[in-house]
Amino acid sequence: MSKPLNVAVLGATGAVGQEFLRLFTDRKFPVGELKLLASPRSAGVEIEHEGKKHVVEAVSAEAFHGVDVAFFSAGASRSREWAPAATEAGALVVDNSSAFRMHPDVPLVVPEVNWDAVKPTDKLIANPNCSAIIMLMAVAPLRKLGTIKRIIVSTYQSASGAGAAAMRELEEQTRTVLAGGEAKPEVFPHKYAFNLFSHNTAIGDNGYNEEENKVVEESRKILGMPELRINPTCVRVPVLRAHSESITVEFEGAAPCVECVRETLAASPGVRVVDDRANNVFPMPLDASGIEDVLVGRIRQDISDPNSLSLFVAGDQLLKGAAQNAVQIAERYFGLG
Amino acid sequence: MSKPLNVAVLGATGAVGQEFLRLFTDRKFPVGELKLLASPRSAGVEIEHEGKKHVVEAVSAEAFHGVDVAFFSAGASRSREWAPAATEAGALVVDNSSAFRMHPDVPLVVPEVNWDAVKPTDKLIANPNCSAIIMLMAVAPLRKLGTIKRIIVSTYQSASGAGAAAMRELEEQTRTVLAGGEAKPEVFPHKYAFNLFSHNTAIGDNGYNEEENKVVEESRKILGMPELRINPTCVRVPVLRAHSESITVEFEGAAPCVECVRETLAASPGVRVVDDRANNVFPMPLDASGIEDVLVGRIRQDISDPNSLSLFVAGDQLLKGAAQNAVQIAERYFGLG
Repeated sequence: MSKPLNVAVLGATGAVGQEFLRLFTDRKFPVGELKLLASPRSAGVEIEHEGKKHVVEAVSAEAFHGVDVAFFSAGASRSREWAPAATEAGALVVDNSSAFRMHPDVPLVVPEVNWDAVKPTDKLIANPNCSAIIMLMAVAPLRKLGTIKRIIVSTYQSASGAGAAAMRELEEQTRTVLAGGEAKPEVFPHKYAFNLFSHNTAIGDNGYNEEENKVVEESRKILGMPELRINPTCVRVPVLRAHSESITVEFEGAAPCVECVRETLAASPGVRVVDDRANNVFPMPLDASGIEDVLVGRIRQDISDPNSLSLFVAGDQLLKGAAQNAVQIAERYFGLG
Repeated sequence: MSKPLNVAVLGATGAVGQEFLRLFTDRKFPVGELKLLASPRSAGVEIEHEGKKHVVEAVSAEAFHGVDVAFFSAGASRSREWAPAATEAGALVVDNSSAFRMHPDVPLVVPEVNWDAVKPTDKLIANPNCSAIIMLMAVAPLRKLGTIKRIIVSTYQSASGAGAAAMRELEEQTRTVLAGGEAKPEVFPHKYAFNLFSHNTAIGDNGYNEEENKVVEESRKILGMPELRINPTCVRVPVLRAHSESITVEFEGAAPCVECVRETLAASPGVRVVDDRANNVFPMPLDASGIEDVLVGRIRQDISDPNSLSLFVAGDQLLKGAAQNAVQIAERYFGLG
């Protein structure tokens, strides 16, 4: 039995916050004292965890005293505001926001891919963008089979990436449309029921939106390949909580054989190969929802280029794309499991 | 006023069949006698068109006597069965199925792209696969700006591609799931509500499914580029009637400038550029539904390759992807409009 750790969750009432609590139980994370923190707006909310009622506290510097690990999932501005207080109080901060991801002194970590980026003295570790994590779970292991030169990825992203309100919006809008009413967008700028749209983050000068630029920059940092060529197209689809991605990977020289890729991925922790050509069973977001593994399939030699191969992945955005990856970081950091 | 044409629609009770009738009115197609044909199972159904009730007849060789143009949309096996009788009766057959598309003597036509493939003596013209049509509406005009070398495309395909029953299945399953029930797949092999899946056609030896292989082969035939390299990934998403596609086009040499592409596409018949970076408004299937133009946006220089550019399209699968393209073929053939 590991020594209990005092844990704080900032953003406890959000979609990712809820997953943290479930994961502490599922993964037997040795939670000592548990502090659920949120904005003053959500303070006072009661959340039950393992049979005990916890009252959500408004976040404050004092709240981090005695905390061993603080999971932040309340957006970039709140992370910027409270990370210094938490680390000064001695907590390890695992930050789910984009606030510090590209900071040169902050490790950006997918434990299965680049745990070596973490030093024991680090007090702040950034959890990557969900689309980047899910893509890299499938792509990073392929480095054993060849040198990756370029990645082309089109995403099929779920509502959960924009939080619990977005998930409710998808359900509510769909209910309205099925009843013959008209969808009224609130969380997203576009109608969502039976629709899809380009990721609703600002388009930069390069013509790519913020989500796409995150996928490029974060993947390069995680892989330690600052020049890697990546072309992402990020799209929101009417799915609740798992992201899917259509990925083409180009290698220096001939692409590795399909069977080699299948074997390598099947042996990769956190990856489950779902690639049943005979029965047409491949990764689907509904199958990926609520599970910890990232599903990978449609593994095939790209018929348009001998140096490329294509695959299709689905991973739970709230789990491996967010809370689970953060908990895994803490587990490794504290030498658990 | 054009001389009226006697018209038969085979598959009149299907999703595409219904669109034919609407298009005859919208496009003022000069319908003389109208024969609605279907399998014996659907014979006797009454369909109103322009204030007149038509009784659906069971298809037979005799039904084609006196018909000038027959639109076939009842699946490949029915097309194979009835096309000879219809052409022998003197009708022009515009066939929406895959039955004859790759036959070397049958023109496979997107009127805006390759009308020159049609000879006045042709009595059978094939209507291409919907995903191929919608992609080519955006890609074919780019040939004016450079030599296309390779296309990588990931699709976001709607229910309508599998017919009216599939559209109902998506709605019914979603209603069931929102009411707390469990989705029971019938038309598709997988759960569809708030889910997506790899296109449910058989996977060939090359690892690509039939839909993907159609996109490759048909696009090559339509463009007259038998060696064109194309890498498609076809995915069904929970959207009702418009297909979207994320496309990367590689050129011999540097990709044309974004503004040149925008201008060229804006001047292309049947294409509407929807590419508002400032307001994050790009092609969406809901906006493409029920309209004749294919929407194109997210036009950008591929940041991973100076020779490539990326774009995102959405087009109504039942209209330009099926019935409308077929009606346009007939209009051009008979010199209408």
